[in-house]
Amino acid sequence: MPKVILLILDGLGDRPVAELSGLTPLEAAATPNLDKLATQGICGLQNALGVGQRPGSDTSHLAILGYDPHLYYTGRGTIEVAGLGMRLEAGDVALRGNLGTVTDDLLVVDRRAGRISDTGPFVKDLDGLSFEGVTLHIKPGTGHRAGIILRGPSLSSHISDNDPHEVGVRIHEVKPLDDSAEAAFTARVANHLFTEAHRILKHHPLNQERVAQGKPPANYLLARGAGFYKKVETFQERYRLKACAIAGGGLYKGLGAFTGMDVLKVPGATGLANTDISAKFQAALEALGGAYDFAFVHVKATDAFGEDGDFLGKKSFIERLDQSAQILLNRPDLLVVVTGDHSTPCALKRHSGDPVPIMMVGEGVRTDQVTAFGERSCTQGGLGRLTGLMIMPEIINLLGLSPLIGN
Amino acid sequence: MPKVILLILDGLGDRPVAELSGLTPLEAAATPNLDKLATQGICGLQNALGVGQRPGSDTSHLAILGYDPHLYYTGRGTIEVAGLGMRLEAGDVALRGNLGTVTDDLLVVDRRAGRISDTGPFVKDLDGLSFEGVTLHIKPGTGHRAGIILRGPSLSSHISDNDPHEVGVRIHEVKPLDDSAEAAFTARVANHLFTEAHRILKHHPLNQERVAQGKPPANYLLARGAGFYKKVETFQERYRLKACAIAGGGLYKGLGAFTGMDVLKVPGATGLANTDISAKFQAALEALGGAYDFAFVHVKATDAFGEDGDFLGKKSFIERLDQSAQILLNRPDLLVVVTGDHSTPCALKRHSGDPVPIMMVGEGVRTDQVTAFGERSCTQGGLGRLTGLMIMPEIINLLGLSPLIGN
Repeated sequence: MPKVILLILDGLGDRPVAELSGLTPLEAAATPNLDKLATQGICGLQNALGVGQRPGSDTSHLAILGYDPHLYYTGRGTIEVAGLGMRLEAGDVALRGNLGTVTDDLLVVDRRAGRISDTGPFVKDLDGLSFEGVTLHIKPGTGHRAGIILRGPSLSSHISDNDPHEVGVRIHEVKPLDDSAEAAFTARVANHLFTEAHRILKHHPLNQERVAQGKPPANYLLARGAGFYKKVETFQERYRLKACAIAGGGLYKGLGAFTGMDVLKVPGATGLANTDISAKFQAALEALGGAYDFAFVHVKATDAFGEDGDFLGKKSFIERLDQSAQILLNRPDLLVVVTGDHSTPCALKRHSGDPVPIMMVGEGVRTDQVTAFGERSCTQGGLGRLTGLMIMPEIINLLGLSPLIGN
Repeated sequence: MPKVILLILDGLGDRPVAELSGLTPLEAAATPNLDKLATQGICGLQNALGVGQRPGSDTSHLAILGYDPHLYYTGRGTIEVAGLGMRLEAGDVALRGNLGTVTDDLLVVDRRAGRISDTGPFVKDLDGLSFEGVTLHIKPGTGHRAGIILRGPSLSSHISDNDPHEVGVRIHEVKPLDDSAEAAFTARVANHLFTEAHRILKHHPLNQERVAQGKPPANYLLARGAGFYKKVETFQERYRLKACAIAGGGLYKGLGAFTGMDVLKVPGATGLANTDISAKFQAALEALGGAYDFAFVHVKATDAFGEDGDFLGKKSFIERLDQSAQILLNRPDLLVVVTGDHSTPCALKRHSGDPVPIMMVGEGVRTDQVTAFGERSCTQGGLGRLTGLMIMPEIINLLGLSPLIGN
C-alpha cells in the first residue's frame, strides 16, 4: 500500500491578477514539477466548507482531515493548546493566552508585554490555581504566548475573551455568551482566576526586575478563543493510518496534535516565507519510509503573501516550493495529494470562498487530461468539485481501505 | 462593491430538438450578447433542488435566492398572498383563491366565473368573516383571483383544497391531511367559512346583476395551495443587501415580497411573451444605480414556450432577450448572474430535472474557456455543477461579503 503525503499550501487559491496578465499567482508561476504531478494525477477543485463558504484555517483543515467542523470545532483554544502538547480531557475549556502589560487601572498598555521571549517563569506560578472546583492549567507557548486549560465539572466554552484585542482600553470582564448555568459559572470562575493571576503576576519578582530594566511587566494573562473539548477520535483510530504532522505554524502543529498525529520537529520549518520546504518534504519522506503511513505537511507562506496582497511574492514562493516538490515526482510508493485549505486572493488580502485546486497522484488514479496545476486548469479535472469532507474518503478509497457499505 | 443583477429566465433549460439540428432552443438561438457575457464570466450548470430533481417555479426560486424550500416552502398560498401585498403573520394559513360559479347543488360550472375581471366588490363583503376565533382575510388579485388568509391560533396548512380543479364536479369538502388536532380544526373552520362565503356571494346584488346580464355569478370562493407562514428572515437581514424584484408574473412578485424585497412596478412587464424586457433591465439598472444592491429580474415567457412545446418560439424569444441583454455588457459596476429556475423541455411540455446553465460575470471571477451560454457549453465551465442553495453563497463570496467560519 502506498504511503500518503498530504501537502496543504495555506491560502493557495487566488483570483485573476491584472498585473499577471489576468492569471492567478499559481497560474503565473513556473511550476514544472507541480504540473508534472498534475499530468500524472487526477485533479479537481475543492471548497473545504462547501461552495462559496469562507473558511478559517482551523475549520478548513479539520474538514480536509475528515473532521466535520460542525462537530469538532468549538473554538481555536482547544487546537492551539493541543499544539503545545497539553493533554486535553473531555469537558475541558481551552483558551489561547498572552502575557500582557496593564496599568493599575487595568488599561492594556501592551498585549505582548514587550514581546517577552519566555513566559515560563511566570506561568509556572499560575499553573494549578483553582477556584470552586475548577483548576487552571497553563503552559508556555512561543514568545509571549501560553496555553490555558480550565478543568472541572460543568464548564462551558460559551464565554467571551478578557483580551480586548487592542491597547488603551480596559481588560474585559469575561461574560457568558448564552443563558446556561454552565456559561455563567465558567465566566465567573474565569474572572476570579484571571484576577488572582494578575495579583500573582503583579508582585512577581521577575516583573520587578523588568520594571527596573525599563521593560513592560508581564502582569496580566490575556485569554481568547475559548473552545470546549470533547473526546476526538484520533486519525489512526479513524483511518488505521499512523500519521505525522510537519508544520512550522503553531495552529497546524495543533491541528496535528488535536487529531492525534505525531507532530514532528523539523529544523528550518518556520511557518514563514524563509521556511525550509525541502527539509519538510525530506522529513515527511523519511517518516513515510519508516513507521508512518500518512504525513500531513503544511506550508504557510502562500497565505501570508495573499494577506499582504503580494502577488509577486506569492508567485515566487510557489516557484520555490515547486523546486522542492521535484522530490515528490515518480514515487510509486506514494500517494501525493496537493491542495490548499482555502483561497487568499491578493486582491482581497483575506480568506475567500473561492475553490482551491487539488490533485491526487499515485497508483490507480484515473489520470485526466489536466497538465497544469492551477485554479482554472483543474476545473477540467476528473475529481470535479469536492468539499473538504470528501477528500479523506477519496484518499482512503485510492488506498483500497474504504469500508464496504452494504453487501 | 459591485451591484448584483440576478436574471432568471424561467424554464430556460431544454433538451436537444431534432428540428433544431439536435440543438436546444438556447443553443440554436443567436445570442451574441449572452455569449459575450459567458466569455467574460465563469459558467456552470445548476439544479435548483439537486441533480435530477424536478422543481416547481416556487421551490426552485426559493432555493436560488438562498431559502431552503424544505424549511420555507409549505405551499404556494403564502407566496401568492405575499405577492398581493398582504402582510402575513406567523401562524397564518394562506391560500390562493378564485371566484367561481357553482350550481345550487354546488357543482362547479366555471372555476373563474366567466373570467370575471374584478373580484373587489365581492371579496370586500367576505373580508373579516370569522368562526371559532379564526378570521378570514381576503384581498382581490388580478382577474378572478384573490388572496386568502386564515388567521387565528392553532391552525395547520395540512388541509386539502375545496377547489376540485375541474368543472362538472361538486365543490370538495376541505379535509385534514394529517391526524393532528390542528389540521382537523382548520379544515372544520375553513368549511364553515367557505359555506358562509357562499351564502353571502349567492345573494350578492352584483351577482343578481350578472345573472340578469347572462353572466355566470361569482358565487363561490375556490381555495387551493394552503401554506403555513413562519417568520421569514428578509433578504436584507440575511445578506445585508437591499434588494428589489422585477417581474411580470404574480408568483415572482410574490417570491420577491415573501423574501422581503421591494417589488418594483415596471410598465410593460407582463410575464408574457410580449413583455418589455428592455424596460425590466432598465428598471433594474436604475434601481441598482440608486439605493438597491441586488435586483432579481424574472422573465417568464421561456417557460411558457417550453410548456407549449414551441421550440421556435422559445428560440426567437431568447434571441429577443439577447438583444436587450446588450445593456448588461461591459459593466464593471455589476455582478451579472444569469440562469433559469429549471428546464422546461419543449419535448416534454413541462418542467424537468435537467440542469440549467448559469454564468456569473464581474470583477474577480475566474473567467473560464466557455464562450457560449448554453446547456452543453456550460458543462465545461469553472463553476462546475451547482445546486440552487450554492448560488447565493457564490454570489456573496464574489462580493467579498462571506462571513468567516472559524479563525
